[in-house]
Amino acid sequence: MTSRERFLAACAAQPLERPPVWIMRQAGRYLPEYRALKARHSFLEMVKTPELAMEVTLQPLRRFALDAAILFSDILVIPEALGQPYHFKDQGGIAMDFRLENHTQIDELGTADTIPEKLHYVAAALTLLKQELGDSKALLGFGGSPWTLACYMIEGGGSDTFERAKALFAQEPALFAALMEKLTAALIAYFRMQIQAGADAIQIFDSWGGIVEPEDYEAASLSWIRQIIAALPKGFPIILYAKGLGGRLADLAFSGASVLGLDWTTDLASAHDQLTGLDRIENRLPRARALQGNLDPILLNASADLAQRETTKLLESMRHRPGHIFNLGHGITPEAKIECVETLVRTVTEWKN
Amino acid sequence: MTSRERFLAACAAQPLERPPVWIMRQAGRYLPEYRALKARHSFLEMVKTPELAMEVTLQPLRRFALDAAILFSDILVIPEALGQPYHFKDQGGIAMDFRLENHTQIDELGTADTIPEKLHYVAAALTLLKQELGDSKALLGFGGSPWTLACYMIEGGGSDTFERAKALFAQEPALFAALMEKLTAALIAYFRMQIQAGADAIQIFDSWGGIVEPEDYEAASLSWIRQIIAALPKGFPIILYAKGLGGRLADLAFSGASVLGLDWTTDLASAHDQLTGLDRIENRLPRARALQGNLDPILLNASADLAQRETTKLLESMRHRPGHIFNLGHGITPEAKIECVETLVRTVTEWKN
Repeated sequence: MTSRERFLAACAAQPLERPPVWIMRQAGRYLPEYRALKARHSFLEMVKTPELAMEVTLQPLRRFALDAAILFSDILVIPEALGQPYHFKDQGGIAMDFRLENHTQIDELGTADTIPEKLHYVAAALTLLKQELGDSKALLGFGGSPWTLACYMIEGGGSDTFERAKALFAQEPALFAALMEKLTAALIAYFRMQIQAGADAIQIFDSWGGIVEPEDYEAASLSWIRQIIAALPKGFPIILYAKGLGGRLADLAFSGASVLGLDWTTDLASAHDQLTGLDRIENRLPRARALQGNLDPILLNASADLAQRETTKLLESMRHRPGHIFNLGHGITPEAKIECVETLVRTVTEWKN
Repeated sequence: MTSRERFLAACAAQPLERPPVWIMRQAGRYLPEYRALKARHSFLEMVKTPELAMEVTLQPLRRFALDAAILFSDILVIPEALGQPYHFKDQGGIAMDFRLENHTQIDELGTADTIPEKLHYVAAALTLLKQELGDSKALLGFGGSPWTLACYMIEGGGSDTFERAKALFAQEPALFAALMEKLTAALIAYFRMQIQAGADAIQIFDSWGGIVEPEDYEAASLSWIRQIIAALPKGFPIILYAKGLGGRLADLAFSGASVLGLDWTTDLASAHDQLTGLDRIENRLPRARALQGNLDPILLNASADLAQRETTKLLESMRHRPGHIFNLGHGITPEAKIECVETLVRTVTEWKN
């Protein structure tokens, strides 16, 4: 069984001897070879040059027996392609070149039909990667959810609270809808392009869906995600990464995504049982059948011993629960130790259900 | 019915015409009179001078018809009293003067019996406040949970991840236990002193309990909180503020606290129904019967209209669910607008169930 077959079988919740494994932000600063390349090229240069994006994407696969490659890119290439560029601040973090605040600015954003041309470099990188990987490894594309992108676009960058984004959602429904419709259309075009270029699955990052009050989650985020997934080929594997939303499984289950990615603050086995239980309650819609996650990334910053113990504990807890893609609950940090990642991947790949 | 009676009735989950209301961090930087005082005195000077602490505590009660006063203080006075001082950094945030890393340092921390003397200024401020308020308003004391304090003490300050605290918990159980035992004993002495000085209720801030993996929550945090509450007078109202823990109600319910404070990412009415349902499942232990919260604080930074709409929505959702203390889901921010706070408090106090 190839890694790619294993990955796709897990997305379909088929029983497997061991889960497939990949690591969010697996191509990143904890790798010396990434830092070496980064010393010569800016982040955006690497993202926009297909050969460099391919190289960075492949770096972790040379070291670790991972089952999936995820394109090295950034969720903010979408705002940029629509006419709202961004840059990295000297003190860390990102800043959009301006804030989205009014109808004129939203009207002036580009439209979905320009996406394939503007983000051609993404398709080119995926095509190169597909040629390189063939059918051996799963190849993942990704993008941000409309709400998550809107947070950055309205706020003009990162934020602890995304106060402006929340205020615009609560107080200017027409403006909010105009922005979300543009983003939804752009993301549909973007994901279709990624699928055509060879992606085996798409991960949608709803990184900020968890910061709104629960009663607003549907209107602020989930309804737009559902529209996107409904517009993609039926049955195509979509992973919905929903940070801080472990308490909303009953809603997330019917987003159309086949896999839900959860952070480490949710017990994955209980979530699996809850998801399975939903079958009996509601069977009108296809529900997510698989889960992805969810070790605390910080566990990879300490010792190989701890990484092994925690990896084993998660594997044990998911025994006889088909439909699990092993991963962290959030991106790996720059301080992660290579030996901890090695241990995690080896522990998963040597596991027997 | 006085505010104090209303507050205590809500803690006991008695049906009320309207819930009592207070606001986490109600004495703080969003108030011009606080900023005026802060221009002349440092934060720690205000905390440590009973007359100043009283003045700051009373400031919001002069403006708004709040039902409770909460002592102006800081959770980090406990580490300081135990021999680990802290200071405010120029760029914002706090730093402990050193990091707790080894047995010697933990052995050298002070013991619980020194707390009443070292933190005499807290008792003095509460005594002054009780004299001032009489039985009109509820008077709240507070402290951090052992885990939340340990996070700062081990990390040497604030952190996005509290990586060192998590590593010490996972890898050095004896060291962790030694620290937690000291903190638990100190907090018991501290809360007893607050109760004796006139506090009507105590809020325990488990601000960082939500960052550990669910299977670790009991060992890292909840078991120590339970020990503390068990050592306090039976039936004394304890509010356990549990940030990011809305998914752990079944555990929190049996902490011994009578009230659970939840952040805005949990639907309070559903939480209330869940809590009530637990009665039927487990009746061995007294369970929490009341909830506190949980508007998103950011909603007070926009407009009075929005504040009113959201306040009303929360009140509506809790109609006929006795046992609700109206509050935000987290501390009010320095950018909150006075008119929004006025609107919130007026909307709650004019409400009829």
